[in-house]
Amino acid sequence: MKRNAVYAQSGGVTAVINASAAAVIETVRQNRAAIGALYAARNGIIGALTEDLLDTTPLPATDVAALRHTPGGAFGSCRYKLPDPAQDERHYRRLLQVFEAHDVGYFFYNGGGDSMDTALKLAQYAQQAAYPLQVIGIPKTVDNDLPVTDCCPGFGSVAKYVAVSIHEATLDLAAMASTSTQVFVFEVMGRHAGWIAAAGGLAFGTPPDTPLLILLPEVPFDAERFLGRVAEAVSRFGYCSVVVSEGVRDAQGRFLADAGTVDAFGHRQLGGAGPAVVAHIRDRLGFKTHWAVADYLQRSARHLVSATDLAQAYALGRSAVQMALAGDSGLAPVIRRLDDAPYRWQVVSAPLQALANVERHLPAEYISADGFGISDACRRYLEPLIVGEAPPPYRDGLPDYVRLSTVPLSRRLADTFTL
Amino acid sequence: MKRNAVYAQSGGVTAVINASAAAVIETVRQNRAAIGALYAARNGIIGALTEDLLDTTPLPATDVAALRHTPGGAFGSCRYKLPDPAQDERHYRRLLQVFEAHDVGYFFYNGGGDSMDTALKLAQYAQQAAYPLQVIGIPKTVDNDLPVTDCCPGFGSVAKYVAVSIHEATLDLAAMASTSTQVFVFEVMGRHAGWIAAAGGLAFGTPPDTPLLILLPEVPFDAERFLGRVAEAVSRFGYCSVVVSEGVRDAQGRFLADAGTVDAFGHRQLGGAGPAVVAHIRDRLGFKTHWAVADYLQRSARHLVSATDLAQAYALGRSAVQMALAGDSGLAPVIRRLDDAPYRWQVVSAPLQALANVERHLPAEYISADGFGISDACRRYLEPLIVGEAPPPYRDGLPDYVRLSTVPLSRRLADTFTL
Repeated sequence: MKRNAVYAQSGGVTAVINASAAAVIETVRQNRAAIGALYAARNGIIGALTEDLLDTTPLPATDVAALRHTPGGAFGSCRYKLPDPAQDERHYRRLLQVFEAHDVGYFFYNGGGDSMDTALKLAQYAQQAAYPLQVIGIPKTVDNDLPVTDCCPGFGSVAKYVAVSIHEATLDLAAMASTSTQVFVFEVMGRHAGWIAAAGGLAFGTPPDTPLLILLPEVPFDAERFLGRVAEAVSRFGYCSVVVSEGVRDAQGRFLADAGTVDAFGHRQLGGAGPAVVAHIRDRLGFKTHWAVADYLQRSARHLVSATDLAQAYALGRSAVQMALAGDSGLAPVIRRLDDAPYRWQVVSAPLQALANVERHLPAEYISADGFGISDACRRYLEPLIVGEAPPPYRDGLPDYVRLSTVPLSRRLADTFTL
Repeated sequence: MKRNAVYAQSGGVTAVINASAAAVIETVRQNRAAIGALYAARNGIIGALTEDLLDTTPLPATDVAALRHTPGGAFGSCRYKLPDPAQDERHYRRLLQVFEAHDVGYFFYNGGGDSMDTALKLAQYAQQAAYPLQVIGIPKTVDNDLPVTDCCPGFGSVAKYVAVSIHEATLDLAAMASTSTQVFVFEVMGRHAGWIAAAGGLAFGTPPDTPLLILLPEVPFDAERFLGRVAEAVSRFGYCSVVVSEGVRDAQGRFLADAGTVDAFGHRQLGGAGPAVVAHIRDRLGFKTHWAVADYLQRSARHLVSATDLAQAYALGRSAVQMALAGDSGLAPVIRRLDDAPYRWQVVSAPLQALANVERHLPAEYISADGFGISDACRRYLEPLIVGEAPPPYRDGLPDYVRLSTVPLSRRLADTFTL
């Protein structure tokens, strides 16, 4: 008998996670003989726990296809870490109870390192409980901090956004510098790893003809050296751009963003690594400084995705279903790089163990000798990931993003679950 | 005898100001019989004062055409206000001295309200001094605060950037809200007028199906009412997005951005209207909040311009030269709206007097009754301005922006000018 499948999105969403969703839905539809209905859990694993499932069967093919060009997480995502089943089985028992009620034999979990860990634990628990469940992870994360895979879907598009944005803003800065702003500071994501900030290093040619300093979480912030470099750049070029990762820390390990300030109303002021860097520059060097914080804009900018990233997001979703069809479980499709230029890659499978709970930082050899930029090796790694454009269709000047009309699946369990 | 022309860029640059520059250069080239060489002043009026002129004659046609898709100010801009000639003639005398040395009979000044004022004063001074000079203004400003013209080149593209960005970020927010961020705050430009923030109101349909509050400089910030609306939206939808203009003030007229804070290092902390609004929300409502500040990104985002805006920027540059050829002076080409939908417009001329020193705020009838959004009339006004896409060419994943190889014109004056 054909069994049903559940797909869920987890963690911070990306500009292309819905392309993975589209791939899962479309590939399941192409294999109706083998897999029954595909349900999406609302808000990630929470929907599976609370029996809040959406039936993707009635979704029109055109809406599913439109997911490829729609950012955000179409079914809702979550930040919710499951306990270790050795300590607390409750969540895992409940998941199997829900899956059994809906005859679910496949679970596709689309997320980062924590989600791969959740998927792994669930696969092990199901096996132990003799519940037949095939669990396949689908990697995604803008942070690009998963091991094993060449890169993570979502990252290439953020990298492109950061490189394009700092290029554009620096052209603006260069035009204004003679009588106005001399320094532009751009804060980007990356709490622990500097991959996103490193992408700023792609903005200008080799050797870079434009003054740009990158502050990475992997390099402790040394205010004196940094200010020296800013002053030098402004003296030579008249201006200087800075890309700063939100995760930059000082030599004592304190986040620059945690300046711990209080405003005139007594509110705790938000830090932000960008404003902190700007305060250093203004107070010590006196330069007029502008700053931007991209925050969600960088990871939702579907209008500017990398076509390479989009293709990889789709390929991993499709491969996940194909792996399930082949009888696999406890695995995830990942990307293997075959060549740098021209970039060639293929999808291979990796055990969830290898992906879970390991954070891949920017390696030392990807950081320039002075610590304020990227090496040629890093450039070779990053360059192909931002290649290609895949703009969404537009209507009346705005991207024509789809909003799904989803149908909640009727609940079959009498009891509810408290998170 | 053919006389030469000077073109200069002034004030904050835009994503399409170089399209006006391309139009001036190309139209002058098409009229070689009437106008001699076209010089660009480096860094706006400062280049004209210091005899720092660039000869555009040797620029390859392909580079000039590429200005249409390159953001920033290709010749440099400036923020520099000339004194009133009634008080201090020195600058005006110098400008005519430089122009005479290079046989300049045409001056095209591409800027906002202050620049139109400068252009006007120079035109009047030249007439009084019996120096034959035709002065034509070319309006541009992302702030959209010039009177007379339907809109200002540069604004439509910022409007599109803001509408697209808040749409995309809100899709991200909606996906995360169940377990993570509930409020997203997006700070945009507009120190005095709310046109840019108002464009956020285009992000969602009519009636809007997504909770979005807009904080305009034209509406005094009332924390209690605002927090009430945020709480209501979060309670109903689970999340709420906010677009806040940098120029928002409280009932006492104080900028929200001027919270006057000091960080742990004793640095004066930067305000920012966005962080100030976030502090209110976090402290009073306790919602998890994310915020972004677009700053230069919004006005340099050539990758996302409005094709309508781009066409208008080019049309005004071309018309400026045509007006000069027709013997006019003391005028600027402006946009007259003929129809809303479909949008039809034409270029007409306006006296510089009418454009100078008048700030056009968002009219009361463009603001929704509750003060947190835009009216239908505003929507009708804004909608056509963001229509159409005109992406730049890309190479290796990045926009292929041009960097001009400009040739400085040999100086002919012995004396220098102190600014």
